[in-house]
Amino acid sequence: MSSTAQRATTGPKVAKLQQIMERKNLDGVVVSSYQNVSYFGGTYLATQNSIPDRLAFLVVPRGQAPTLVVCGIETRQVLTQTDIADVRDYVEFAENPTDVLARVLQERGLAGSSLGVDARRLPMASGDLLKERLRGSELVSIDDEVELAQSVKDRSEIAMLESAAQATLAAAEETAAELPPGSSERDFSTLAFLKLMQKGGTPLFQVFATGERTMQAHPESTERRLEPGVLWRIDFGARFHEVINSDLARTGVVGEPSAEQEATLKALRATQDAGFKAIEPGRRAGDVFRAVKDEFKSQGLPFSMPHIGHGMGIGLHEFPMLEPGCDIVLEAGMVLNIEPMVVMEDRKEAYHTEDLAEVTTAGPRLLTPPQEGLLRVRA
Amino acid sequence: MSSTAQRATTGPKVAKLQQIMERKNLDGVVVSSYQNVSYFGGTYLATQNSIPDRLAFLVVPRGQAPTLVVCGIETRQVLTQTDIADVRDYVEFAENPTDVLARVLQERGLAGSSLGVDARRLPMASGDLLKERLRGSELVSIDDEVELAQSVKDRSEIAMLESAAQATLAAAEETAAELPPGSSERDFSTLAFLKLMQKGGTPLFQVFATGERTMQAHPESTERRLEPGVLWRIDFGARFHEVINSDLARTGVVGEPSAEQEATLKALRATQDAGFKAIEPGRRAGDVFRAVKDEFKSQGLPFSMPHIGHGMGIGLHEFPMLEPGCDIVLEAGMVLNIEPMVVMEDRKEAYHTEDLAEVTTAGPRLLTPPQEGLLRVRA
Repeated sequence: MSSTAQRATTGPKVAKLQQIMERKNLDGVVVSSYQNVSYFGGTYLATQNSIPDRLAFLVVPRGQAPTLVVCGIETRQVLTQTDIADVRDYVEFAENPTDVLARVLQERGLAGSSLGVDARRLPMASGDLLKERLRGSELVSIDDEVELAQSVKDRSEIAMLESAAQATLAAAEETAAELPPGSSERDFSTLAFLKLMQKGGTPLFQVFATGERTMQAHPESTERRLEPGVLWRIDFGARFHEVINSDLARTGVVGEPSAEQEATLKALRATQDAGFKAIEPGRRAGDVFRAVKDEFKSQGLPFSMPHIGHGMGIGLHEFPMLEPGCDIVLEAGMVLNIEPMVVMEDRKEAYHTEDLAEVTTAGPRLLTPPQEGLLRVRA
Repeated sequence: MSSTAQRATTGPKVAKLQQIMERKNLDGVVVSSYQNVSYFGGTYLATQNSIPDRLAFLVVPRGQAPTLVVCGIETRQVLTQTDIADVRDYVEFAENPTDVLARVLQERGLAGSSLGVDARRLPMASGDLLKERLRGSELVSIDDEVELAQSVKDRSEIAMLESAAQATLAAAEETAAELPPGSSERDFSTLAFLKLMQKGGTPLFQVFATGERTMQAHPESTERRLEPGVLWRIDFGARFHEVINSDLARTGVVGEPSAEQEATLKALRATQDAGFKAIEPGRRAGDVFRAVKDEFKSQGLPFSMPHIGHGMGIGLHEFPMLEPGCDIVLEAGMVLNIEPMVVMEDRKEAYHTEDLAEVTTAGPRLLTPPQEGLLRVRA
């Protein structure tokens, strides 16, 4: 599914950074995280995640064109991806990337200025060095603003999120349907990832557990056999089209579910529906949280979630986070996962289900159909 | 391959942090990265990589027992992994993790102290907040020291690295041997990851490209068909045993290689051998770099690498980095990848090969056998 033929169009995205500078009266912006460099800089450097010292930066002076600063190892690839004309690189180890950044900032007139940075992502060592090199400059955290600027997706991003989510759902459902009796947890997760890859995804993460271990937040599969009657849950995702993520959860059983198990899933689904129902432009993210939390109470389910869902895109948890303190107003074009999870302490089981919805003026548009009952693996 | 039965033994690792405090006269240490919390804290939170705001910290006051600070979502899982008795958690969104950290530091007598931190990993926002909350404290970067403390592996870590490397090599070789004629790049990378998973790995990253795109540093597979005569290269890795990484590269052709192609691989292999030969206790990491670089010259190959290999473990690129400026002295028990890559601009091809070796008093012990010729995929 990936392609190197199309170059990113960064203009409209860089314009969002210009708006942030206007609003906050900043002279320039530097962003550094994988998510932010990918989104605003139009280049996707997976090594930003796996090799944290290999820093990359996007620099945008107010009212001027952007500059990308990347590791020289990556330059050839960056030039095939971004449409940003000014790409500078540093020689890894021979040069400190933050020193090179400081020189670019000076050259672009940003010494002694007021500079927005993604301070929850920029390493402290880089921040300290910048402050030293650019004496008189003020580094202002703009994490919330740059996250918010990514929250409303365009049609092409929504189409990618939708196809990625549907491929992920198909991988989960087909795996449950096709897994041979007597398989292990690991067989399940291997087949689920295989199907994801066959549908164009690059594996990102996978939670899979049975029985008591479903109560952990992010357990991984073991060699344990899938015993008849046991509950299992999967929560997994992949990267599609080089950059967009998927994230989907399903709960199932091995063989036939008990009436109690089906009833719990049904109650959990009611809480998810309450979340979908609360998704409309003009309401606040925290309202969606409260709608789900209230429905847990109505359904008699114990509630212990700090958030019940989140925005999706290049990042796995993007703004708006559906948590009680989030007062971001929902807008058409936001794409949100609703993912209630319930831990049934007495039965030592946790149920989790997660689907994606687009915020539209006509209400929520579900990008994946929520599960109607527990998925089944043959015993 | 993963197991939840065994709890980590953190004592000897936390002792290394105590030694760093002694040497640098620090009152305490806080580490925050996935790699550092995993290594010293004995808990493996994959979400530290995928959800960067979900911070985790290990706090160690000098001469005292450690405290782990983790997100409440993860607590149940953390308690099954670590042997550290004092685990504190925070409620995501309701509490700022760094605020909770500051309270723990105060409680443990570390306000107004000299505190070592992994400043290349700790976010600037957290560093700034700590400085504000703990007035009079000095935050000292100990990134190099904590990386170096991880560089000599114990027997069990070496055994895991060896089995992970061998599984990864087998996945590459079997994929090349079994891939049906007419397959695409993506078919190759899917089969390679499937084999990795069947051998116990959890996919981490995969570079795969053919022809001209081999010249990029980290290209991913496309739907392009594997055409007869074309060069391909793979560089991929997985996480094994919950925590240890693999990282291996191979170059091959589709069908029969030309004499020129085989000659280039042979010359590249000579540079890799020169690297292995330079691995002995007492020599410096930079010497291994220079040995490989010199052999590039002897072989008449163009050289453009900022580093030619690296330590392996929980991180993908660990100390010592085999780069010209690294004066770390090699010690028995270090485990190093040697990975020369050459870009042949005229033929628009890049060759890359990567294997793992343990530093022993008797010289290098290869944990994977280097490739003797170009791998072949059936045309």
